[in-house]
Amino acid sequence: MSAVPQSENKILLSLQKDAILHLTLNNGSANTLSIALMTALRDAIVAAGSDDSVRVIVIGHAGKVFSAGHDLKEMTARRSDADKGQAFFTQTFDLCSELMLAVNECPKPVIAVINGLATAAGCQLVATCDLAIATDKATFCTPGVNIGLFCSTPMVALTRNVHRKQAMEMLLTGETIEAGDAKDYGLINRIVPEDYLDQVVTKYATMIASKSQMTVKTGKQAFYAQAEMGLREAYDYTSKVMTENMLAGDACEGIEAFIDKREAKWSDR
Amino acid sequence: MSAVPQSENKILLSLQKDAILHLTLNNGSANTLSIALMTALRDAIVAAGSDDSVRVIVIGHAGKVFSAGHDLKEMTARRSDADKGQAFFTQTFDLCSELMLAVNECPKPVIAVINGLATAAGCQLVATCDLAIATDKATFCTPGVNIGLFCSTPMVALTRNVHRKQAMEMLLTGETIEAGDAKDYGLINRIVPEDYLDQVVTKYATMIASKSQMTVKTGKQAFYAQAEMGLREAYDYTSKVMTENMLAGDACEGIEAFIDKREAKWSDR
Amino acid sequence: MSAVPQSENKILLSLQKDAILHLTLNNGSANTLSIALMTALRDAIVAAGSDDSVRVIVIGHAGKVFSAGHDLKEMTARRSDADKGQAFFTQTFDLCSELMLAVNECPKPVIAVINGLATAAGCQLVATCDLAIATDKATFCTPGVNIGLFCSTPMVALTRNVHRKQAMEMLLTGETIEAGDAKDYGLINRIVPEDYLDQVVTKYATMIASKSQMTVKTGKQAFYAQAEMGLREAYDYTSKVMTENMLAGDACEGIEAFIDKREAKWSDR
Repeated sequence: MSAVPQSENKILLSLQKDAILHLTLNNGSANTLSIALMTALRDAIVAAGSDDSVRVIVIGHAGKVFSAGHDLKEMTARRSDADKGQAFFTQTFDLCSELMLAVNECPKPVIAVINGLATAAGCQLVATCDLAIATDKATFCTPGVNIGLFCSTPMVALTRNVHRKQAMEMLLTGETIEAGDAKDYGLINRIVPEDYLDQVVTKYATMIASKSQMTVKTGKQAFYAQAEMGLREAYDYTSKVMTENMLAGDACEGIEAFIDKREAKWSDR
Repeated sequence: MSAVPQSENKILLSLQKDAILHLTLNNGSANTLSIALMTALRDAIVAAGSDDSVRVIVIGHAGKVFSAGHDLKEMTARRSDADKGQAFFTQTFDLCSELMLAVNECPKPVIAVINGLATAAGCQLVATCDLAIATDKATFCTPGVNIGLFCSTPMVALTRNVHRKQAMEMLLTGETIEAGDAKDYGLINRIVPEDYLDQVVTKYATMIASKSQMTVKTGKQAFYAQAEMGLREAYDYTSKVMTENMLAGDACEGIEAFIDKREAKWSDR
Repeated sequence: MSAVPQSENKILLSLQKDAILHLTLNNGSANTLSIALMTALRDAIVAAGSDDSVRVIVIGHAGKVFSAGHDLKEMTARRSDADKGQAFFTQTFDLCSELMLAVNECPKPVIAVINGLATAAGCQLVATCDLAIATDKATFCTPGVNIGLFCSTPMVALTRNVHRKQAMEMLLTGETIEAGDAKDYGLINRIVPEDYLDQVVTKYATMIASKSQMTVKTGKQAFYAQAEMGLREAYDYTSKVMTENMLAGDACEGIEAFIDKREAKWSDR
């Protein structure tokens, strides 16, 4: 999963700059999350998760669309299967859920960069990433209801980002929201001018990449784990996590460096 | 539950226009949620839930108050019962909770329309509805703390709409918030000028009513079900929901229509 | 825990004015949450919890820093222990979690007042308090990631106040947010000018102190309990809470006073 040369005919471009792995969705004008793209993206994220040279993953897109979600033509074609497509649809939604869980379970922070439309499973991918940076050209929707297929898996991620009334409005109306509303709702972190997007993303990713990798891994795992616990259980669990973290070499070095007012040198693992 | 003629002396007015059932709280100037009104409202919602001619439910109000919550005079009168009112209070709060759960469990979207004060169980009803449209005359509070009776059931709905600090402030101070804050907090979806309220509500409800009813039902049920699950469980569950949804006739029709760039014709069930 | 004279050399100042207990963090310029300060603060909160003369607790700070979190020098010194500090670190994080749970479990509302920097466990304390009032000089961060020690216990409180993306940004970048963002995110309730801070806090605390203590206790306990339940379970539970609340003397008095349009006289217990 180390630096892969950019290739124009790949559906997922992969380019590593220093410790930042840039994955670019490049699957036609709609960037549909076909089986092939979901598989490639999941595999890239899983591989990066155990690659010490990668510290931050950025998921961006070629073209005007971040992703329009599943490949409806690919799915419709399978309605002629003996089982009317059931096995293929199961495969599609299971793979999609696996992809999303791979983002959450990846020990490296994953940042979505959106400079266009993100719909359905595309919107879900934005909601799933740890962080999201957008331009004012970014728009978001969960329009499955318009085609008879409610965005039920996207809402798992959406409702874990956004208050219920706002999530329900997106899901029931299928309407598109602007970047400004997406930020107000909690779906994205920042809106930057398109001209500065690369610069801001690089600065932001580099800053996060400069942290101790062990520490970020510890924290990201604990973040999603404690979110599903009651308060007392969450404290019991995170108290243990912090004690272990405190005993690790990077905390020892980091705290000493802080007290000595010098830069810390992380263990790089 | 099909079109019921409007009657001036009813505490709950019911009027169906096309597929939209308008339920209007009409229980005196405070629109108190008396046993009679809660029963009528719950029954109307349950009946509409299984009435194919109804696709969206709108809950509005006559007069200046959406609802001031429970009928304190009705409750106080029962303090002279042999059990000091215990059985009646239990009936009241259980019925109120049943009413709220009926809104959540109703397969049709329920939209609250607020053009005045919504307090205590009235505010809870707004929080419970799937969507809420208000005017800038709408105000909201949970003032039970002022009369020695904490808004404990309202907070179940409130805290599932709004961040903790904001919910706690409303509950501990009992103070009234304006529509603008209610929108910022996540309690309502939209604020529209009073003169355009009916027009906007009709447009909004009609738009939602135009979707496949099977799809909306599937999605609404999954929305509240997955909200109570851990992430992996939620994905396992919604992946199955989506496969089933994909195999249903309306998704077949909706996706074909989308690919063919024509209007979909829903099965109407 | 009744009125304690203010003493300049104490790390926790305690001053009761009427029913409001003002606890002031006074542990050097960084107001570190050392073992001594966490113990003193927890003990003061637990004691106030069962002191009928205290109705509201306010946690403020001397100096420019609300609290910079744990005492890193105190912790680093224990790395020379035979167990490399493990027992001490466990004690620190367990005590910190106990302190936070004591705030949640205290039957009296706890208000944080922030007029400076609140970082790490200091930010956690703000997030944990029931309410938070700040000036525009208040800033907030969870910067453990910068020193190799992820803010894993602070995130338990933070993620129960703030949407995931915003919490994750604070945790992964360690960057400081202004009071305005903290209010938008849901971390604090109000921003007031520094010159009026004492006046607003007193007015706000006095208003909450004027409520029935039994009612506030009932409500606060139910608030955190129901937050961890599914919807139906939460309604079953709070319906019972409300019936019991309704049968208590203060609800009887409060509702009668409301109907009679007079001031209620609470039982003071």
